Amino acid sequence: MLKVAVVGASGYTGVELLRILVGHPEIEICCVTSRQHEGLPINQVFPSLSGFCELPCEPLDIAAIAKHADLVFTALPHKTAMEVVPGFLAAGCKVVDLSADYRLKDQDVYEQWYQVHSSPELFAEAVYGLPELYREQLRSARLVANPGCYPTSVILGLAPLLEKHLIDPKSLIVDSKSGVSGAGRGVKLGSLFCEANEGFKAYGIASHRHTPEIEQELTGLAGCAIRLNFTPHLLPVNRGILSTCYADLLEDKSTEELIALFQQHYADEHFIRVMPGGQLPNIAYVRGTNFCDIGLVSDQHTGRVIVVTAIDNLVKGAAGQAVQNMNIICGFDESLGLGIVPTFP
Amino acid sequence: MLKVAVVGASGYTGVELLRILVGHPEIEICCVTSRQHEGLPINQVFPSLSGFCELPCEPLDIAAIAKHADLVFTALPHKTAMEVVPGFLAAGCKVVDLSADYRLKDQDVYEQWYQVHSSPELFAEAVYGLPELYREQLRSARLVANPGCYPTSVILGLAPLLEKHLIDPKSLIVDSKSGVSGAGRGVKLGSLFCEANEGFKAYGIASHRHTPEIEQELTGLAGCAIRLNFTPHLLPVNRGILSTCYADLLEDKSTEELIALFQQHYADEHFIRVMPGGQLPNIAYVRGTNFCDIGLVSDQHTGRVIVVTAIDNLVKGAAGQAVQNMNIICGFDESLGLGIVPTFP
Amino acid sequence: MLKVAVVGASGYTGVELLRILVGHPEIEICCVTSRQHEGLPINQVFPSLSGFCELPCEPLDIAAIAKHADLVFTALPHKTAMEVVPGFLAAGCKVVDLSADYRLKDQDVYEQWYQVHSSPELFAEAVYGLPELYREQLRSARLVANPGCYPTSVILGLAPLLEKHLIDPKSLIVDSKSGVSGAGRGVKLGSLFCEANEGFKAYGIASHRHTPEIEQELTGLAGCAIRLNFTPHLLPVNRGILSTCYADLLEDKSTEELIALFQQHYADEHFIRVMPGGQLPNIAYVRGTNFCDIGLVSDQHTGRVIVVTAIDNLVKGAAGQAVQNMNIICGFDESLGLGIVPTFP
Amino acid sequence: MLKVAVVGASGYTGVELLRILVGHPEIEICCVTSRQHEGLPINQVFPSLSGFCELPCEPLDIAAIAKHADLVFTALPHKTAMEVVPGFLAAGCKVVDLSADYRLKDQDVYEQWYQVHSSPELFAEAVYGLPELYREQLRSARLVANPGCYPTSVILGLAPLLEKHLIDPKSLIVDSKSGVSGAGRGVKLGSLFCEANEGFKAYGIASHRHTPEIEQELTGLAGCAIRLNFTPHLLPVNRGILSTCYADLLEDKSTEELIALFQQHYADEHFIRVMPGGQLPNIAYVRGTNFCDIGLVSDQHTGRVIVVTAIDNLVKGAAGQAVQNMNIICGFDESLGLGIVPTFP
Repeated sequence: MLKVAVVGASGYTGVELLRILVGHPEIEICCVTSRQHEGLPINQVFPSLSGFCELPCEPLDIAAIAKHADLVFTALPHKTAMEVVPGFLAAGCKVVDLSADYRLKDQDVYEQWYQVHSSPELFAEAVYGLPELYREQLRSARLVANPGCYPTSVILGLAPLLEKHLIDPKSLIVDSKSGVSGAGRGVKLGSLFCEANEGFKAYGIASHRHTPEIEQELTGLAGCAIRLNFTPHLLPVNRGILSTCYADLLEDKSTEELIALFQQHYADEHFIRVMPGGQLPNIAYVRGTNFCDIGLVSDQHTGRVIVVTAIDNLVKGAAGQAVQNMNIICGFDESLGLGIVPTFP
Repeated sequence: MLKVAVVGASGYTGVELLRILVGHPEIEICCVTSRQHEGLPINQVFPSLSGFCELPCEPLDIAAIAKHADLVFTALPHKTAMEVVPGFLAAGCKVVDLSADYRLKDQDVYEQWYQVHSSPELFAEAVYGLPELYREQLRSARLVANPGCYPTSVILGLAPLLEKHLIDPKSLIVDSKSGVSGAGRGVKLGSLFCEANEGFKAYGIASHRHTPEIEQELTGLAGCAIRLNFTPHLLPVNRGILSTCYADLLEDKSTEELIALFQQHYADEHFIRVMPGGQLPNIAYVRGTNFCDIGLVSDQHTGRVIVVTAIDNLVKGAAGQAVQNMNIICGFDESLGLGIVPTFP
Repeated sequence: MLKVAVVGASGYTGVELLRILVGHPEIEICCVTSRQHEGLPINQVFPSLSGFCELPCEPLDIAAIAKHADLVFTALPHKTAMEVVPGFLAAGCKVVDLSADYRLKDQDVYEQWYQVHSSPELFAEAVYGLPELYREQLRSARLVANPGCYPTSVILGLAPLLEKHLIDPKSLIVDSKSGVSGAGRGVKLGSLFCEANEGFKAYGIASHRHTPEIEQELTGLAGCAIRLNFTPHLLPVNRGILSTCYADLLEDKSTEELIALFQQHYADEHFIRVMPGGQLPNIAYVRGTNFCDIGLVSDQHTGRVIVVTAIDNLVKGAAGQAVQNMNIICGFDESLGLGIVPTFP
Repeated sequence: MLKVAVVGASGYTGVELLRILVGHPEIEICCVTSRQHEGLPINQVFPSLSGFCELPCEPLDIAAIAKHADLVFTALPHKTAMEVVPGFLAAGCKVVDLSADYRLKDQDVYEQWYQVHSSPELFAEAVYGLPELYREQLRSARLVANPGCYPTSVILGLAPLLEKHLIDPKSLIVDSKSGVSGAGRGVKLGSLFCEANEGFKAYGIASHRHTPEIEQELTGLAGCAIRLNFTPHLLPVNRGILSTCYADLLEDKSTEELIALFQQHYADEHFIRVMPGGQLPNIAYVRGTNFCDIGLVSDQHTGRVIVVTAIDNLVKGAAGQAVQNMNIICGFDESLGLGIVPTFP
């Protein structure tokens, strides 16, 4: 049994990691940490976990954790993550980091969008944890930079088109919508029920921190510098991201041809479900699971393709993908512990 | 007192018309009709109206209604509307038609997207009821084609840019999101609570009937044929449309310059609220009212402008705009009865 | 024009007071205060108010406010309210206090449930602002203790039965459900969207602070000491309280007889809508308005009556009732500015 | 591998059965039926099932189904169920019937609340499928009458108190709240998103069909005839029932004593989680799972106990309990396939 620690267990990503990990047959959770709830059993923080995980919340003591843990999930805010990740690595743990701290490859870009980085020497080693793109590199990774939720939904939707050079790389527009859990469990005005419920808004237009992450990966796929419009919106649901991606087609392709292309591209991917023609994704159909559902339409009227992707931001957009990455770097079957069936309705 | 009839009172547009009209100081509701609830007091159909409007639902008898009514709101599905509108006009009533039947100016286009039209001779006379564009023509109108909800939100957001030729007319992409009341009160699977709640999806990509209506009006504004991508989405809220519109800027303009342009363009418009820089619309801030809130960002990174508009689909997108049109064609103050303050939260 | 100040304008009760007051024809808002947002125009705190109220938030300076204001609404937390109410009264203002500080008549009870009270000498003078019970005393009041939201919904539902001694005063059980806005706009974990949405729970069982307030008023109506079970629940909606009240009937009365009794009891009450037999209230039918809808069933099977009441917690449960009280103590028509039609859906 | 058929697969109970069954290691789904969607793969009806179950919907042909199926889940409306259950039994299948048709033991009561029954001879044989009460009888059952959702939540909350004669059996009041999926997937006005969302109402007061079912079982537990008030309410969430139960205590017991009693009573029950003092259930903590969470408070002030239970109406209230019953009658471990961890948020 692999011993794993969940560092930062009292956020929504933390509880989601625990939800998935308690059902994983090859691991044992040896430690959960929470500064805020130190000493409290985690199932008093999240009564949903009663009967599944009742460990007490421990302080974030790297040495103490590394003594028992083979692998550490760091579910911390950016900046806080970089303060502990090097220590865990030095102590011999593998790390799947769910923060943004090791996702960008260019230190300047990181420091422009976030703040000074204290361990940029790890950038080269960190593997961007999108298995559909980096599976081989992940197998031997010691540090996984688990992708952002929005980037996951966007990159998976555009990868087949960019790789095949079917779309104009200058034409990309991505309109994304995320459930409120994407904002985390921190108590802030904008996350209050009455502020979000029955409301809908765009935010961070032309300034959201996931933009450089998306551009970095799409640039790699396209082989040329990508600049795109990425507009996130706040959706009054608990979970789910739906990204609607627009691009100019470079050659005339029908909806059916493009769907066939996607189906072939993702034929071996367990967690990608390309929908047949006439069907479009709904965040309700992936709820609680690691799936990314993809639908698309080729619009002859304008010569554009519209790709729609749906993920659960807490699963494929965070904890589920983190466990998928753990499976890969630890040599388990990639879908182990992730066979969750979507709950509908 | 102007006598008005609400034909098709038992849908969401109908009850919204009644909600607004019972507070209008210059009119009297002389008749409400509903095939389904004939004989039942309308406040038993909608208990919210108790104490405000308790008229019995009558059958749709044109002659009987026209005997008392000076003006008729037809809140019927398309096709059903065209079966009665000519009769009301012939009987001397003014008509504000909330269906799609008289919005399109080109019979071929209408028949391609809907079905055969039985009174295309009225197309020339019908005035498209968007006061911000057609106020003068409306003053003397006998038949108002009240705009669709999505088109209202899109046209108001793009008009200043197209009129000033600031954006590339071939570059338009509109990503819209509507609350469930937009689908009406008909009982269908997709409108069930459990199908929509905690869900989110795109629908009608490249095939929604509001596309030709939007293109017709934007073409008029731009002075050249417009083809755009219009993608509607279903939002799990009762009311509200948020449209996020993308366009390539033809010349470099800052966010502040563009906001100033919009503020000037809409300076005399009572129901347009252009938001200051840094603020973006939220459907929650216009709930229950006839406002269209507009915010925008000029993205130097990609050379595009992103305009976001928010309306209440049942008010500025339907019943409120219909009353605004009634005010204009009847010579009342344009905002009479529409001074509703948004309910937040 | 009466000059009124809204002290504590940046909470949900504050914005609701402003929503109602900007449409009131006999008053002028001379001042809004907010510690947190001092200097900011209130419509930047609440963009919904743009075009209606754009006053800057001022600090809470009693003397400065009292110089202009004839009447002050104090929309502050308990304890904070008692620190300023005596000052406003001394400065000659009338005060409608929306906190709990002057609702209880017994200082011991207050101090047992809240904390030490600094101005208990005002208890005798303060009038409990439930017009349906205390209209005459209110006419000459200088200090109105605006009732709690839950107590309003409960007292109005049980008053006719207790006054007529039709129910066993020892048998009362009240099961209430409130929307999240009842918890205020303070940022706390339990008010987060993801904590409340798709959730439902009871809280404060046998320990909610509204219990003594309800018991005080029901005791007055019954003429004997009332002890009841009051169980509040948190409902995943923005607004609304529905209270389901159970009591043993002392004599056999049919549903129809009891409805007739309620209709007679409340015949002259503008804001009480007693529903006909077979109909039951829904918080959706009173949304945004000052109505209290009441429905009931006499259950022959158990000999109990079940009374269900619905109010909007922010209107009849707070701001609307406060304006109703202002109307009474200032000699305006009681429903002035409160003719809002419910928004449905 | 046990071969099971799901008859009536296109409702919410049907899809929930499939969600659970596809993860069950000892069974194989051999057939799904749906009159409405005959011929369509079930994953086109419910795209959430793609990759898990893609069987075509078959017509309801008893002989054809019985040829392959060892056990049949009938997820049909009452009356429709009784038309097929005897046939499946005669053909040698075990049946877990999720309708109301075999729950009541008294034919007169059944026919008074529902309609004429065509196979009352099966009443004696059918076992009421609440394992916490009838586990032994279930082991050898051929026909299981799977309990109603509300009754499950009520009976489990009151059983320990009634069995120990700690509460006055004449004092029971149950105030229940259910998510909208409880109304099924039929398209009816009251189940529309806009009718339920942001709304809350009681319905079926003193007349809900689950009342005789609850009374039958509580009568059995108490050893004397029980009549109670049962008031259901419609909660704007997809899933979940919370029942708040009130009863007069016959002897003074503290909250701690009663919790200890419940913990002892349910010590061996896998799916009952009795919450420690100070904690109360929330439907969010049992979402998607077969748990029944129970919390309680003894109110010294009134001498009553308030028991609150939370279940997922589609799982412990329907499909999950049905699988639990299948496990028992087939000799599997009772929790097999039901180890689902609650999804929060």
